[in-house]
Amino acid sequence: MKLQGIIPPVVTPLTDDHEFDEVSYERLLNRMIDAGVDGLFVLGSSSEVVFSTDERRREIIEAAIRITDGRVPVMVGVIDTATPRVIEHIRVAEELGADAVVATAPFYAIIGQKEVERHFRLLHAATDLPIFAYDLPQCVHIKLQGDMLVRLGSEGVLAGVKDSSGDDVGFRFLSIDNEQLGHPLQLFTGHEVVVDGAYLSGADGAVPGLANVNPDLYVQQWKAFKEGDWDRVRELQTQEARLMRITSVTEGETGFAAGVGAFKTALNLMGIFDSPQMPEPILPLDAKNREAIAKVLKEEGML
Amino acid sequence: MKLQGIIPPVVTPLTDDHEFDEVSYERLLNRMIDAGVDGLFVLGSSSEVVFSTDERRREIIEAAIRITDGRVPVMVGVIDTATPRVIEHIRVAEELGADAVVATAPFYAIIGQKEVERHFRLLHAATDLPIFAYDLPQCVHIKLQGDMLVRLGSEGVLAGVKDSSGDDVGFRFLSIDNEQLGHPLQLFTGHEVVVDGAYLSGADGAVPGLANVNPDLYVQQWKAFKEGDWDRVRELQTQEARLMRITSVTEGETGFAAGVGAFKTALNLMGIFDSPQMPEPILPLDAKNREAIAKVLKEEGML
Amino acid sequence: MKLQGIIPPVVTPLTDDHEFDEVSYERLLNRMIDAGVDGLFVLGSSSEVVFSTDERRREIIEAAIRITDGRVPVMVGVIDTATPRVIEHIRVAEELGADAVVATAPFYAIIGQKEVERHFRLLHAATDLPIFAYDLPQCVHIKLQGDMLVRLGSEGVLAGVKDSSGDDVGFRFLSIDNEQLGHPLQLFTGHEVVVDGAYLSGADGAVPGLANVNPDLYVQQWKAFKEGDWDRVRELQTQEARLMRITSVTEGETGFAAGVGAFKTALNLMGIFDSPQMPEPILPLDAKNREAIAKVLKEEGML
Amino acid sequence: MKLQGIIPPVVTPLTDDHEFDEVSYERLLNRMIDAGVDGLFVLGSSSEVVFSTDERRREIIEAAIRITDGRVPVMVGVIDTATPRVIEHIRVAEELGADAVVATAPFYAIIGQKEVERHFRLLHAATDLPIFAYDLPQCVHIKLQGDMLVRLGSEGVLAGVKDSSGDDVGFRFLSIDNEQLGHPLQLFTGHEVVVDGAYLSGADGAVPGLANVNPDLYVQQWKAFKEGDWDRVRELQTQEARLMRITSVTEGETGFAAGVGAFKTALNLMGIFDSPQMPEPILPLDAKNREAIAKVLKEEGML
Repeated sequence: MKLQGIIPPVVTPLTDDHEFDEVSYERLLNRMIDAGVDGLFVLGSSSEVVFSTDERRREIIEAAIRITDGRVPVMVGVIDTATPRVIEHIRVAEELGADAVVATAPFYAIIGQKEVERHFRLLHAATDLPIFAYDLPQCVHIKLQGDMLVRLGSEGVLAGVKDSSGDDVGFRFLSIDNEQLGHPLQLFTGHEVVVDGAYLSGADGAVPGLANVNPDLYVQQWKAFKEGDWDRVRELQTQEARLMRITSVTEGETGFAAGVGAFKTALNLMGIFDSPQMPEPILPLDAKNREAIAKVLKEEGML
Repeated sequence: MKLQGIIPPVVTPLTDDHEFDEVSYERLLNRMIDAGVDGLFVLGSSSEVVFSTDERRREIIEAAIRITDGRVPVMVGVIDTATPRVIEHIRVAEELGADAVVATAPFYAIIGQKEVERHFRLLHAATDLPIFAYDLPQCVHIKLQGDMLVRLGSEGVLAGVKDSSGDDVGFRFLSIDNEQLGHPLQLFTGHEVVVDGAYLSGADGAVPGLANVNPDLYVQQWKAFKEGDWDRVRELQTQEARLMRITSVTEGETGFAAGVGAFKTALNLMGIFDSPQMPEPILPLDAKNREAIAKVLKEEGML
Repeated sequence: MKLQGIIPPVVTPLTDDHEFDEVSYERLLNRMIDAGVDGLFVLGSSSEVVFSTDERRREIIEAAIRITDGRVPVMVGVIDTATPRVIEHIRVAEELGADAVVATAPFYAIIGQKEVERHFRLLHAATDLPIFAYDLPQCVHIKLQGDMLVRLGSEGVLAGVKDSSGDDVGFRFLSIDNEQLGHPLQLFTGHEVVVDGAYLSGADGAVPGLANVNPDLYVQQWKAFKEGDWDRVRELQTQEARLMRITSVTEGETGFAAGVGAFKTALNLMGIFDSPQMPEPILPLDAKNREAIAKVLKEEGML
Repeated sequence: MKLQGIIPPVVTPLTDDHEFDEVSYERLLNRMIDAGVDGLFVLGSSSEVVFSTDERRREIIEAAIRITDGRVPVMVGVIDTATPRVIEHIRVAEELGADAVVATAPFYAIIGQKEVERHFRLLHAATDLPIFAYDLPQCVHIKLQGDMLVRLGSEGVLAGVKDSSGDDVGFRFLSIDNEQLGHPLQLFTGHEVVVDGAYLSGADGAVPGLANVNPDLYVQQWKAFKEGDWDRVRELQTQEARLMRITSVTEGETGFAAGVGAFKTALNLMGIFDSPQMPEPILPLDAKNREAIAKVLKEEGML
């Protein structure tokens, strides 16, 4: 199984009192699967994985596996601070039926590249599941080196990379190196508004958070790319970028609150989520920001 | 209870096969308590908290409480990525008998100061234990603002601050503000080689990792400070700084591997730890680095 | 005059004793103009502008204007720490016949966005020459905000942007905003290995340092883009990326020494520069690095 | 001549129309010399050196030399982007009678430690004046390594260091290393509110911008330190820290505008400067911020 295409990182709905809202979750997943996505990525950064207790993580995986019911592969994030904790999450993912796991480098403790490499090797020694390396230096505070990634790919340690590093130059070199070695790694971009550039660079697909709000655009864009219709690819990219403004029209919010807050608010406005509730210590976006998001959704024909 | 004085962040010994080594731990704790430390801080950064599974964390707390047996207060780190997970660690700390807990801001997800403030308020609402804020932007990637800290102190949300931010200017302002409000916060520095400057700035004590290797120096320095003997304070500071070179004489290592690696290697060389084992994915320091550390220990009369 | 297409930032040859080597310069410029570049950018970062005295800067502009002789427009960098110094450089550029000037935000002193905006307004008030904003946060340590750039563009303060910020997401939004306002800004990318992605994003051209070494690739790629031949655009991008490895095969060098050092060494190996000399305090690349670069050049058919 | 004690970095007064205000400058310098400072540092960061044209720099040095008239030594900043430009400034400093020069590492272009070291060696080869290295990574974006500094000190390349790096741990190690080699470097701290900690660490003096506003506090503190009266040293430090709040009570300003803006506004309020004018593109602080500063000055008995 080589994963490719559109694999959205699934946002996690909460009830107003911070319980997992499985009904909304089912609506969200079915809508994306019906739109034709090629897989789902649960417990990624946008899924509020680091805000979720181990019990909550388990709830989410179980629901995703049950709802998906084999229609598309399910990748599961096993994100935690260091190897021993990550391996525990891998055990749960294995038990519950994940198709692949996604792991970052260790974080919080300051480490070097040799420890990052050993980390991935230890994860591989611990599981038969395909492992995707998640490159997200804004959160993890270390960049995964391209030469390390292709080495681990060609040795069978890694199955692929989800690149959200914001480093398009690095991604290009990674892609060229990967090609020279026979394409051992499946490469995905996590940047919603430059998916087209990533396809030019050789990406095997995208993991766009915005596909929670509009999966169609990304599915159509992937098809256009496969057909070599670059005008259509660009046109859809512009539509995606315009819709992505839901994450920047808000005021007084930064980072996770602005980004995932906008996704949840949009999904709530569109009737897919019953509540825009955010995980503690984040509050849902206020009325004014909600209005600003509604305005963008209307302009883009989503409301 | 107002904590003050020398409260070392306790390094965690492992066996060669990565089990918790309670025998070495007992030697370490008794040596520090016998030297006259005023408390112990377990499950801090130097205690490899983020490398430890929940089960390992529990083992460590239980051992610390059992060994300490009320001789000195035990502060317990409840370090995790966000509020819901931190509250789970607080529950364990309460259950096992901690005297206080130490929490960082949330990390990994990018958040703002208002979320950090809400985080500490939610922790306080969840427990009666005194809460110490841990300021460590090198790992947490956000600086705790001084005005927020004193506000939370004067409202009874926080009992104190462990400052390892490397920002001596900020610490001075924090100390002056705290004084003006009647000293609601107990302030501790985590920087081994400028403890004297922190005392001048108004610190109520220190949390020096190096005190694992030589607790006497810090206990004597605290006494000299209380007696107003600044020449002695400085003299001891110079000795501490010279000993601290065990963390910089190594080659090819950075961050946690260099720092805690040096502490563990020194404790092993001195016969206090049976093994210099490090948590995965970190390897113990190699023979050459071990020699370099032994040389410093000899020069400083520790071997 | 709307600048567009390929406008290489011209590398500055030095003699072994650190004089400006006008003979090599003439070879370099003529070769690029003959290849069909659309303009030249002198005194940019790659032109060692910040290593050049005011007298040296003048020598370089004079030579560029003389050699170019109106065949293509000449953009002149007026890079310095703050407004009054930049305006002095603008005066010289005007006097010597520049077609446009390129300015960064102020640097060294820490300032905010409002001061950056005022800076560009003051520059515009001081000259009739078209002003291009140079976005290079790796050197300038402040990112030019997209909304400020398009505002200054629509008011006629700025004629365009040279984006070397490494932020492809920001560039996409800048391009879309610029389009909505009627395209007041001409947008150029400075990133050699993702020029294709920038074209997809709406760039009006590229300012690739690597075009000093091989201008043909970039000129052909621009033509392919104008003809909508994306397969050819990508194919040329891969060739460019492979050639760009001259900047990463070196060992023991970073930043300017690795990048411009590689360009100068390649130009020297190819017989265009008489010497690979670097400006003080940088030394030319050593024999081993020179060999590594020669190897890449041979593989890419440049030697 | 071994420089030591209090050497304020002199703020530069401007007239409302951005000319150098030599009358105010004379008032400022005489007031500091009368207060007993041990030297003056002109054309440092706080002197708006990077906002000043070469002609303005010359005006300032000439005025400083004329006014000082040998009463105290004058250190002159020769701050520019790279070696050839810095050497030109050194020539002017020599010509006009400076007693020492102060140089940073090169900035803007990204370089490594070996180039920094070569830079200082080239400066030393170019002049007989004592050279002080200025460590200011917030502006220069590279940290001067302690081992390099003491090596250059023991070889006679550097006469001393002005440390404004905000790294008190590094300063302590620098001081201890310097002592072991026989104290070749004179070490100064630039951090106004932790001068006492720097004295404990072994500093030979301070270069506090705040001494422009109140030179007495720093002169008295230096005397108290020389007499071993640490209680007095601390007491004065608290007064200095309280006065330093003029730089943080402002709203909507950052960096240079907040810091030097506050100094100029205070000096204007106190009648020492005729105008609070700031160099372009910075505006003087607004009325509300001016009031906030006046309030602090009154509380501290300066108005």
